[in-house]
Amino acid sequence: MGAVEDRLSELGLTVPDVVPPVAAYVPVVRDGDLVFTSGQLPMVAGALAATGKVGAEVDADAAKALAETCALNAIAAIKSEIGDLDKVSRVVKVVGFVASDPGFTGQPGVINGASELFVKAFGDKGIHARSAVGVAALPLDAPVEVEVIVSVRD
Amino acid sequence: MGAVEDRLSELGLTVPDVVPPVAAYVPVVRDGDLVFTSGQLPMVAGALAATGKVGAEVDADAAKALAETCALNAIAAIKSEIGDLDKVSRVVKVVGFVASDPGFTGQPGVINGASELFVKAFGDKGIHARSAVGVAALPLDAPVEVEVIVSVRD
Amino acid sequence: MGAVEDRLSELGLTVPDVVPPVAAYVPVVRDGDLVFTSGQLPMVAGALAATGKVGAEVDADAAKALAETCALNAIAAIKSEIGDLDKVSRVVKVVGFVASDPGFTGQPGVINGASELFVKAFGDKGIHARSAVGVAALPLDAPVEVEVIVSVRD
Repeated sequence: MGAVEDRLSELGLTVPDVVPPVAAYVPVVRDGDLVFTSGQLPMVAGALAATGKVGAEVDADAAKALAETCALNAIAAIKSEIGDLDKVSRVVKVVGFVASDPGFTGQPGVINGASELFVKAFGDKGIHARSAVGVAALPLDAPVEVEVIVSVRD
Repeated sequence: MGAVEDRLSELGLTVPDVVPPVAAYVPVVRDGDLVFTSGQLPMVAGALAATGKVGAEVDADAAKALAETCALNAIAAIKSEIGDLDKVSRVVKVVGFVASDPGFTGQPGVINGASELFVKAFGDKGIHARSAVGVAALPLDAPVEVEVIVSVRD
Repeated sequence: MGAVEDRLSELGLTVPDVVPPVAAYVPVVRDGDLVFTSGQLPMVAGALAATGKVGAEVDADAAKALAETCALNAIAAIKSEIGDLDKVSRVVKVVGFVASDPGFTGQPGVINGASELFVKAFGDKGIHARSAVGVAALPLDAPVEVEVIVSVRD
């Protein structure tokens, strides 16, 4: 295991199997030095860890934990493409979509669950630009979806 | 016509004229090897093919067909920039926005209308990473909007 | 000051201080020639210029002005990374998120506030691809959020 997986292991986390796409696409595409993941849902062992809208059925703390799960699935997708996670030279951009009750405006705190995992896993290379938005609904009634672009140096 | 347009022709599809932007931007920008399209609406001959929210006024099957129209308009935008669609080396990333009733969670099936067209048109080069989300509303009350990043080799 | 800041100055605008992130990320990341900003909110001197949903508490004209503020904050983020805004060779892609009452479908006009500022500031290099979508809610109840990708040549 490389340094990134060592850090995840210290957090009690292992890189899961890649989540199969819900539909006609692949989890990750590399183009040159950039790796783009598909939007990752909080799937654990093949099922959503929770469903519902944040600010209604799902509270902000639970949603933050789900965002971490999305990020872990994104890391799995990246690993499936590049093999060794230590080849990630920068987490460039994260977009976090939070299925939100219209009255819920705490999207940044929710998506911190993903952002903080990227920093814990990749160190300074994990510090990224980010957008967090509250959407009307997500696939399969997922509360959170996270996509990421990373840069890779072989 | 190149191979990509031949495949579209076999599907009974022709690349339409580029949809003029609704506002102060252009349909497509190339930077280096990457081509970024603007968000494409399901415009046909200058008018939206349908309006309304998916899961309310628009059902999932109709929305899937609209997503295909968005993808065809994205292909038109790309062609306007690069001339020959056979220069597309990879469809890298697709984001599909579905104007969704909050109770509608079938966004993946809807955006498959776009994803499947990219694969039919570009073959293996059309297989992409993707995010699908359900949003509150889209421009002009469009049910679907699709943006895409492709990589080009001259 | 370079040409870009001169043009902003003629509009009565100065590049503000960079808006500190609301959470665990940075305002901007450069990877190679591409600079990705985080989603920018309409912050002025550390506070949101307005809150609420467009089409409900916030009208379209006010929202357009807020989108310009988002764009100015994006320009500040880019400047903090590259120093001289004249090094921007192209504004490549803009995504505008409008916190929308479900009945509001004028997102393009709102995000024109951002698009038009990019063109005024960067001239022909400011003409970009763009997506505009209406979302359920944004961080801190912001009415608008804008992210941008620019290309830079040193």
